[in-house]
Amino acid sequence: MTETLGDLGEAELLKRLARFAPDGQLSDDTASLRSDSRPLLVNSDVLVDGVHFSDATTSAADVGWRAVAANLSDLAASGAVAIDGITVTLVAPSTTPWSWVEELYTGIADGLSEFGGTLLGGDCSAGLQKLVSITALGRLGPLRLHRGEARPGDWIVTSGAHGLSRLGLALLQNDEVLNTADLNPQLRALAIATHQRPIPRLDALDTLLACKPDGLAWRAGGTDSSDGLLAAVEALCRSSGCGAELTQAWLPRTQHWPFGDPWDQWCLAGGEDFELVLSLPPAWAQRWLEKQAGSRRVGRITGASSTIRWSENAQPVQTKSFHHFRNN
Amino acid sequence: MTETLGDLGEAELLKRLARFAPDGQLSDDTASLRSDSRPLLVNSDVLVDGVHFSDATTSAADVGWRAVAANLSDLAASGAVAIDGITVTLVAPSTTPWSWVEELYTGIADGLSEFGGTLLGGDCSAGLQKLVSITALGRLGPLRLHRGEARPGDWIVTSGAHGLSRLGLALLQNDEVLNTADLNPQLRALAIATHQRPIPRLDALDTLLACKPDGLAWRAGGTDSSDGLLAAVEALCRSSGCGAELTQAWLPRTQHWPFGDPWDQWCLAGGEDFELVLSLPPAWAQRWLEKQAGSRRVGRITGASSTIRWSENAQPVQTKSFHHFRNN
Repeated sequence: MTETLGDLGEAELLKRLARFAPDGQLSDDTASLRSDSRPLLVNSDVLVDGVHFSDATTSAADVGWRAVAANLSDLAASGAVAIDGITVTLVAPSTTPWSWVEELYTGIADGLSEFGGTLLGGDCSAGLQKLVSITALGRLGPLRLHRGEARPGDWIVTSGAHGLSRLGLALLQNDEVLNTADLNPQLRALAIATHQRPIPRLDALDTLLACKPDGLAWRAGGTDSSDGLLAAVEALCRSSGCGAELTQAWLPRTQHWPFGDPWDQWCLAGGEDFELVLSLPPAWAQRWLEKQAGSRRVGRITGASSTIRWSENAQPVQTKSFHHFRNN
Repeated sequence: MTETLGDLGEAELLKRLARFAPDGQLSDDTASLRSDSRPLLVNSDVLVDGVHFSDATTSAADVGWRAVAANLSDLAASGAVAIDGITVTLVAPSTTPWSWVEELYTGIADGLSEFGGTLLGGDCSAGLQKLVSITALGRLGPLRLHRGEARPGDWIVTSGAHGLSRLGLALLQNDEVLNTADLNPQLRALAIATHQRPIPRLDALDTLLACKPDGLAWRAGGTDSSDGLLAAVEALCRSSGCGAELTQAWLPRTQHWPFGDPWDQWCLAGGEDFELVLSLPPAWAQRWLEKQAGSRRVGRITGASSTIRWSENAQPVQTKSFHHFRNN
């Protein structure tokens, strides 16, 4: 018979999870971190079964990895140069197999061992649906990246191609949109890998910090594209009181990415891309594009508050964004 | 018509919640805290509708207050002398009224303004049931309180009476156990207030730090009684490899608390008491009991690993603890 959380009880569950926290941080309710002269960055993110993942397309280990990646991506997009670790709150029905939980924490541990940080404790409770709520802690480097720091004249650049995660999801779901698509096998494999094991771009932040031209101040706008490229640009514009001009020809497509719909839509608004989306003075942007493999220019920041247009035809850039609470 | 989260969408929801974070920490995904020379304490705790609270007995504002209190109580029981703040992750069905969410965050803001700290951001998602997942950050003082630092010969002391929160819940639920009880009206009012607006005992920690005898090292066992007094003593014993002897006559009853069942059970294992439960060298314990109003001695730590007995008759102390995942 499958062993479930209801069979274990909370004390036994916490005992079993202790091996994922090598410092013994789970033995108290509270974890302790040594003091550090750098400001602390804090970020919380939740993944809910049926909203952000589903058992049909995502293994428990991939849910754990993705939860780590989503949180560390936010830290990278804020300027974190070191990761302290994360707390993990798990809510799950008492019928959930222990093996699912064990795989989840294995995926979390794999993500932490890849990108840095340790498991700093957390909480568990029974609930109607599975969800993982993570809070990540990191240390700020010389640049505090803010959404509100974009300025007209900046170039909008990103650390990589967009739409892959959405394509990966469509492939895993056998989405009928793909029936007629004659997809390159390498693209297929890359899309599925990107969906299952996304990578927070701490590396691209390091490059950005290393290549700032001496004459420029530490000022840059930034966010990640966890809700899609367009949502990231919208967030930069909204928080900075600016507008943007995107160039259709520069849409950050990966190799073999088809043209037309749904491909342009997925590239713009597929979501879960976890790339950095930055607003940089042109000189800094140029140096970053040279140094950072896979990075692209996608447009520029304008003074036309909250208006995002295509540079080719001045038409507004439109798409359906991802709204967690909306029923559309 | 009642305005729901589904009507609002995520962007509008976050915009409305921004007023609860006066520092503008919600405008980015990530909050930033100035560096501090003291070690950082981190704690996560989740409250789930139907498990930890119910709309029948707890208003949204009280859920918010309780969530803050539960987290800060864990920080107090770890030695936190200053509170930085909390991140709040809210999951709720899209049919949830905006007014419920507004009241929740009002209760959270009230708790923070009472006990210290600010709202440092968080996340929101749709989900099948309402839940609030909080991570609290604080700064360690001179004493790191650990569950694993109890020693045979220590006195077990606590900052206050136990069972009040459980009684408050019973009163709010019109529990039939209470049908025959001729309860003192002051006790009723106190129990309901304790259930709805529990107080994390940061004050009792301050007293403890101020009254340590000079000759003693900074060593004490500690936890809070969020899962009940007996669970707290069990946790101290388990983590320290010790046992305990409790004295029935010293059960920390409040004034007018009746004797017998269920009163002794509620005092021992009612849960959600949020008092400090400490294991202290007798000289330190004595000074704390003198200085801290309402504090009590309840027993002593023994060398009999994991055995908890009554001092009066050497019988094991037994009760049903609260298991979130168990179906009993």
